Amino acid sequence: MRIGQAAAGRKVAVKWRPFLLGPIFRAQGWNTSPFAIYPAKGRYMWRDIERRAARFGLPFKRPDADDPRSFPQNSLLAARMALVALEEPWGEGFCRDVFFAEWVDGRDISEAAVLEELASRYTAPAELVEQALSPGNKERLKKSVEEAAQRGLFGAPSFTIGNELFWGDDRLEDALEWADAIR
Amino acid sequence: MRIGQAAAGRKVAVKWRPFLLGPIFRAQGWNTSPFAIYPAKGRYMWRDIERRAARFGLPFKRPDADDPRSFPQNSLLAARMALVALEEPWGEGFCRDVFFAEWVDGRDISEAAVLEELASRYTAPAELVEQALSPGNKERLKKSVEEAAQRGLFGAPSFTIGNELFWGDDRLEDALEWADAIR
Repeated sequence: MRIGQAAAGRKVAVKWRPFLLGPIFRAQGWNTSPFAIYPAKGRYMWRDIERRAARFGLPFKRPDADDPRSFPQNSLLAARMALVALEEPWGEGFCRDVFFAEWVDGRDISEAAVLEELASRYTAPAELVEQALSPGNKERLKKSVEEAAQRGLFGAPSFTIGNELFWGDDRLEDALEWADAIR
Repeated sequence: MRIGQAAAGRKVAVKWRPFLLGPIFRAQGWNTSPFAIYPAKGRYMWRDIERRAARFGLPFKRPDADDPRSFPQNSLLAARMALVALEEPWGEGFCRDVFFAEWVDGRDISEAAVLEELASRYTAPAELVEQALSPGNKERLKKSVEEAAQRGLFGAPSFTIGNELFWGDDRLEDALEWADAIR
């Protein structure tokens, strides 16, 4: 939600790279989000996100703790669609809409119908889904996850500048400053 | 290292509360630091600390990965001594010296001799150790750890203002702003 404006302010070019956290968490021995595995840290993180959203004037609705479908959500189709969408000028808008649907409207983004409705703001949704499910695009996402692991990513959002890794919304400014300083 | 000046700038009073991470980590199922359990995250955290120390002009030396005694270090005696020291005006100075010894000079702060040398800058070290090892003080530290767990702490440094918890050096400014705003 914040990177577009922040990067423009620094004149830093940003390339969005969708990937999946599931395989990365599994490599650490986690079968779900660490928020769910470690309750003390999980409780803190939700509160921290809430406070930071308020600070930036961003809407945020905590997932319903009593609804196991509400968090974590399966983002496989969303990531595949995002990979295709990001070839288009409206790709980042589609990604923001998906985040908004999950984190503000409390919708279930694992559902194809939800993603298609969001995509229909920009394109013919059935075609986007068809491209997303092509063998070549599935392979592309797999490669993207492998590259994320190789680059040492263990969470999202992460920002890379060369071999330098920054993790978390709270490192966005540091990452942009780094990118600005080394050019 | 940063809280003294930052809190003074906001006119916020700070009470230092030594506690132990060991029992808190064990309650999460960790038998050592998560930096050691999760290598990808651990590698990132060391680099992050290094970058942040550079940003604040603070010296920092990474623990020697080949020396298992270098990290994590047993801080039981240090915490017990700090609890007594913080009753005195030089207590915070002693705490900073202990951090400096471990994180800059690469010394082993589990050693009583190292802690006594640091304490001798301020007081008669043998007396401080004697008070630190008294049954009453041991009990006090135990209570402090229990209170930390009850307040939802899962890492250090943590800052509490009433029931509001902030975790990490990177939340110091947020915590001080919160304390400033609610008074």
